[in-house]
Amino acid sequence: MTYYSEETHGPHEIFELGDYELESGATLPSARLAYKVHGTLNEDRSNAILFPHMWSGTPKAMEMFLGEDRPLDPSRYFIILPGQFANGFSSSPSNTPPPLDGGNFPNVTIGDDVRAQHRLVTERYGIERLELVLGWSMGAEQTYEWAVRYPDMVKRALPFAGTAKTTPHDYLWVRAHENALKSDPAWDGGHYRDQADVRDGLRRHAELWSVMGLCPNFYKVEAWRGLGFTSLDDFVTRFWEAYFAPMDPNNLIWMGWKWRHGDVSLHTGGDLAAALERITARTLVVAFSGDMFFPPEDLMAEQRLIRNSQFRIVDSLWAHFAMFCLGQTDREQIDACIRDLLKEPA
Amino acid sequence: MTYYSEETHGPHEIFELGDYELESGATLPSARLAYKVHGTLNEDRSNAILFPHMWSGTPKAMEMFLGEDRPLDPSRYFIILPGQFANGFSSSPSNTPPPLDGGNFPNVTIGDDVRAQHRLVTERYGIERLELVLGWSMGAEQTYEWAVRYPDMVKRALPFAGTAKTTPHDYLWVRAHENALKSDPAWDGGHYRDQADVRDGLRRHAELWSVMGLCPNFYKVEAWRGLGFTSLDDFVTRFWEAYFAPMDPNNLIWMGWKWRHGDVSLHTGGDLAAALERITARTLVVAFSGDMFFPPEDLMAEQRLIRNSQFRIVDSLWAHFAMFCLGQTDREQIDACIRDLLKEPA
Repeated sequence: MTYYSEETHGPHEIFELGDYELESGATLPSARLAYKVHGTLNEDRSNAILFPHMWSGTPKAMEMFLGEDRPLDPSRYFIILPGQFANGFSSSPSNTPPPLDGGNFPNVTIGDDVRAQHRLVTERYGIERLELVLGWSMGAEQTYEWAVRYPDMVKRALPFAGTAKTTPHDYLWVRAHENALKSDPAWDGGHYRDQADVRDGLRRHAELWSVMGLCPNFYKVEAWRGLGFTSLDDFVTRFWEAYFAPMDPNNLIWMGWKWRHGDVSLHTGGDLAAALERITARTLVVAFSGDMFFPPEDLMAEQRLIRNSQFRIVDSLWAHFAMFCLGQTDREQIDACIRDLLKEPA
Repeated sequence: MTYYSEETHGPHEIFELGDYELESGATLPSARLAYKVHGTLNEDRSNAILFPHMWSGTPKAMEMFLGEDRPLDPSRYFIILPGQFANGFSSSPSNTPPPLDGGNFPNVTIGDDVRAQHRLVTERYGIERLELVLGWSMGAEQTYEWAVRYPDMVKRALPFAGTAKTTPHDYLWVRAHENALKSDPAWDGGHYRDQADVRDGLRRHAELWSVMGLCPNFYKVEAWRGLGFTSLDDFVTRFWEAYFAPMDPNNLIWMGWKWRHGDVSLHTGGDLAAALERITARTLVVAFSGDMFFPPEDLMAEQRLIRNSQFRIVDSLWAHFAMFCLGQTDREQIDACIRDLLKEPA
């Protein structure tokens, strides 16, 4: 399995968590969090930014937002791109030895990720406050979890296209794409030998993403032509199927479970308003137009419960995938969100 | 297989089409169109209404809109509820003898349905003009096909939540739910012995409908509680899974193929505007709010190309399934569409 290699995703640093107790009560022995850093932590440790990644991604996916002429400038900020459990580099179904390998891997939660990231930030780097925590989709879930769980540590929070509490519709959607993978007899309860054996499941799964991952208007105007695809099927095959084909089905399924159980109100006995009230960070909630599973109204409903917050819509044909910056103005709009929030006092 | 029985769906009349040549060039031997009628055709044959049904349905599904105190009053109108190929009562994979049984059934089109319905209307009843053609979803596709193919016969057209030309996004969506059925090894290319053998495929298929068939807000406000369901999973199981469980997978797949290939612009060399320009019927295009696969803007884009037309949105939490009239004001709003259009001169 060469996909989860440094050749493909660049070098990672490893933070050893030891025997890590999960929120479920299970223990993940010799757990590890793989991560990347860019820039230099200043002396008073006041220039750190944390940027967790999305479902199906790795820290590399967020590097496209870093650069000298970009709002996340490593010559100014110390930028930590933490991994998460089940991403293939941190402890995951695909890289954990028996007896917790593959289908035997325990369920992990957003809280498990964020507690591990917190240890990295505090124990390895001695950071007490983060200038900004930002993330897209599952990265937004982690951003919310940070802002609710460690409010004093998060000066600014920037969740893009994600929720503090998974909506029931998203719960159904994520379970459906997990089940598309599981539908392949080769998946075998997660006990396949080679991820490529689950190719039919991976294709069915990609097909669902082609339906829900973008929006009707994207397909109507054939926005895929701008990327050189020659037909609808060409796009489905060489974009969606190709994206998922090399990935590990269990990793996707275990990240999916984590996604659909994301819920900051677990900190407040189910009271979402009370949980979001804990947030002291200056917060910018960003929705992507046409997002089929994080519609702007759902995100705005949460934003209204956050005291020091604003709401913005990034307008893109790419819907939930605006973060890929494949549309003409997507990067510009997203950069502006980051730049504007960093400018605000906090 | 007792689902496709008169016990469940009431009595049908049968129109024998003989050896019926399909648009594909294939011939369906001894083809039949099953249908229902209500009311009495008046002497000058001027009181006929045609109300084709949706994908997965049968003529029975449309009977809920008929009644003495309803806009489709059988004491005034002669109402024909025609079937369509692959619905389980008309010629279908499930009821056709070898060699065209099950997975060997030929692909059928909306045009095939409408030509068969046209023969029923003209040959059996000698009707020259229809007061109204209306339909929901695939019934709307058939309504458009009628209005474009036989413009002189259609005085009024009322497509609810459906398109004249399937959008690329809907093409992907329908193919995905077809593939959910096909994903079950028991489907076996359509050559299973008993539809219940494909139960896993039927469940996966129902799961996709739970995601795309309703809208995020429906689930957010837990609208299913109003029908007595006790949890999200209870609703998924006893509403979605129960709805599809008794149906024949091949029938659903073949109707799906028909749905996603629906396109009135086949009459005009691919020019949708030219096709819709053929429509002389007074037309009311109705969208359902929150419809995940027929968003109001897609329907309005077509309506704008129809000369004598209006556009209306039925506001319902039930999104595409507003036509089930399970929301408080759904029936009232839908009745008003029918009533208002029938009042207009045409």
